[in-house]
Amino acid sequence: MAAGFQTVSFLSDYGLEDEFVGVVKAVIRGIAPGAAVIDIAHQVPPHDVRAGGLVLARTMQYLPPGVVLAVVDPGVATERKAVAVEVGGGLGEDGDEEPRSVVLGPDNGLLAPAVALAGGARRVVALTNEEFHLPAPGPTFTGRDVFAPVAAHLCNGAELDELGEPLDPNLLMPGILPLSRVEEGAVESEVLWVDRFGNAQLNVDPAEIDDLGSPLVLRMGERSRTAVRAVSYAELSPGQVGLVVDSYGLVSVALDRRSAAEELRLGAGDAVRIEPAQD
Amino acid sequence: MAAGFQTVSFLSDYGLEDEFVGVVKAVIRGIAPGAAVIDIAHQVPPHDVRAGGLVLARTMQYLPPGVVLAVVDPGVATERKAVAVEVGGGLGEDGDEEPRSVVLGPDNGLLAPAVALAGGARRVVALTNEEFHLPAPGPTFTGRDVFAPVAAHLCNGAELDELGEPLDPNLLMPGILPLSRVEEGAVESEVLWVDRFGNAQLNVDPAEIDDLGSPLVLRMGERSRTAVRAVSYAELSPGQVGLVVDSYGLVSVALDRRSAAEELRLGAGDAVRIEPAQD
Amino acid sequence: MAAGFQTVSFLSDYGLEDEFVGVVKAVIRGIAPGAAVIDIAHQVPPHDVRAGGLVLARTMQYLPPGVVLAVVDPGVATERKAVAVEVGGGLGEDGDEEPRSVVLGPDNGLLAPAVALAGGARRVVALTNEEFHLPAPGPTFTGRDVFAPVAAHLCNGAELDELGEPLDPNLLMPGILPLSRVEEGAVESEVLWVDRFGNAQLNVDPAEIDDLGSPLVLRMGERSRTAVRAVSYAELSPGQVGLVVDSYGLVSVALDRRSAAEELRLGAGDAVRIEPAQD
Repeated sequence: MAAGFQTVSFLSDYGLEDEFVGVVKAVIRGIAPGAAVIDIAHQVPPHDVRAGGLVLARTMQYLPPGVVLAVVDPGVATERKAVAVEVGGGLGEDGDEEPRSVVLGPDNGLLAPAVALAGGARRVVALTNEEFHLPAPGPTFTGRDVFAPVAAHLCNGAELDELGEPLDPNLLMPGILPLSRVEEGAVESEVLWVDRFGNAQLNVDPAEIDDLGSPLVLRMGERSRTAVRAVSYAELSPGQVGLVVDSYGLVSVALDRRSAAEELRLGAGDAVRIEPAQD
Repeated sequence: MAAGFQTVSFLSDYGLEDEFVGVVKAVIRGIAPGAAVIDIAHQVPPHDVRAGGLVLARTMQYLPPGVVLAVVDPGVATERKAVAVEVGGGLGEDGDEEPRSVVLGPDNGLLAPAVALAGGARRVVALTNEEFHLPAPGPTFTGRDVFAPVAAHLCNGAELDELGEPLDPNLLMPGILPLSRVEEGAVESEVLWVDRFGNAQLNVDPAEIDDLGSPLVLRMGERSRTAVRAVSYAELSPGQVGLVVDSYGLVSVALDRRSAAEELRLGAGDAVRIEPAQD
Repeated sequence: MAAGFQTVSFLSDYGLEDEFVGVVKAVIRGIAPGAAVIDIAHQVPPHDVRAGGLVLARTMQYLPPGVVLAVVDPGVATERKAVAVEVGGGLGEDGDEEPRSVVLGPDNGLLAPAVALAGGARRVVALTNEEFHLPAPGPTFTGRDVFAPVAAHLCNGAELDELGEPLDPNLLMPGILPLSRVEEGAVESEVLWVDRFGNAQLNVDPAEIDDLGSPLVLRMGERSRTAVRAVSYAELSPGQVGLVVDSYGLVSVALDRRSAAEELRLGAGDAVRIEPAQD
């Protein structure tokens, strides 16, 4: 019994300068007037599948059940597949049915981390049934011509298996989530994300550095800085570098009211080695 | 029988730094709580009527029937008219009534290309009836004080002829859509738009260059580059310039995963001459 | 009889690069699917409480009754309180009940100007009841973990006094609204806001400068420029500086189709002395 969905959560690298996001929403509204679209973020750096996958992974648990549409698609108009991935919908431990969502996007690794966090893919189809697509004046805007109408039809109650050929969930392109490593009493980590405030999120669970004490030393290539563990940004004195547990529960490098990423010249993907401070 | 509308599609040069867009939506929501607003785009370069008109023309066919509100208005608070233009609503070839929309905006050429694409203006009124406006603390924000309340009242079922004085549709300010020219076996074109990914859309239909073969030569002022016809961005090798049929069915200058506009120093309005490559 | 609310108007300094705004909306949608969220603005400069408070004050009168959520919160995860402030809801002069809104945000002065414009706080509570919050993986994203769920529960009909401890409205942190001064036949003013078009809004009521005539002289530090009073931007000749009554009824420094702030090197907080021109 597919009752359809009420919400499309939408992530892309379309930016907000052009009309791409607006046109996708207009197409959804034209087909499924009752569905609401929530913009997750659209300023993922162009073609940056890794960054988009990380945004989707961070947000997935907060999205209402529904359609999740994610488009960062450097391989548009090539052989890469456009897919719909069903997650949830099984019976939970209490015997009740869990909420079901359908994640739409290109099969290029973008969806994989979020799908894994949602318990894995239950069913996957390639979006090959053109009855659910718009006629395309050109092949390069699948957000408008394929994903938007498919999202809208899912809201209207279309069944997954109507949308195209079933695929083996095990053959989905995996995503790349860099792991930190503990090495000789230090933690080798990587910057996952620099946010608007200049906080640099590391792929480090707070427990991983608990044994290293505070203060600590951050080594970034040839440079190094002392940092302290802190709960809030405001408890850092001017110029003091803090390691704060951020809102996603990961360790992030921060300053109070200033950009740590700018001051420490950190960007997504940069390596940061965390060591105990020498006495 | 005017049943009103459910959707306001909204384009402007208000940007997203300030609260202009939010206030317009708040005013609409206060008057017509059941109407949804779709943001087409708000980062049209300030006062750039040509760019705004092109965005509206590109998106018009994808907008759901309803109110279309477009504001790029360098002549605000002068004698330029604020207008409502009815499009559609006639009987189609099959005898059924076609969807009707009302396009709102300043009469400065912004609306003209989209209105023409929608089959032309059926009726036009100047928005002179102040009963449908908000009291204005100053005369420079007609989006908030005139267009937003009028859009909302249209959603609520207001009739076009209540909104103000009828105008002759033939006297609407025309828009400027630059045409390409075929000249001595070459095509003289112009960049209509550079998108976020750096693709430079030309005012060229693919059929216009079919006889020129591939590769081709692009002449931009004193500079020139060789380009090849391509279907997808990804089939271009690094550094290779492609002419790709874009998502609106026009020829666009592109690179794979890099900005062609930046590399070739192309901006909106620039001239590009397309020639067959010499053997 | 709390009937709840239909609309959350949302202001923040979260920017649009990251997913912060989207996650807040996703959380609201998950709890209160029937509520609509209106984005007032999210590009308030990071941590700029003064700028955020001014945006909120400018927009407050245009917001539909409902929940108003404002987050510019440099002191997140410290002792500063998260509050809900009830405004309106009393009996108006005609004996009818006035619309009621609840303003949510940090108690750091951000809310004060808007609350004052809305007639002052009727009731205030600190958001201490964690039953209305989300479990937080880290303490730094109260927008998601505290304000969003509280906003949604208010929409669903939660009573203010369920949300936490009552506070004395007189103890709310005051906001800072700079006042202009008349001095020796001149007006000492300050730039409140530079908008996207480069207009520099001053804290000056038009009546304050009526006696100074036109043209006038603007003194900005060591620099000075002649300016004329004007109704529209378009009536200014190229290069002519105008003092225009802006859309909020305040005097603003403007050029026609160019940025006055850039040309005159004006930014928020800068002092501008307005004098009569010498004969």
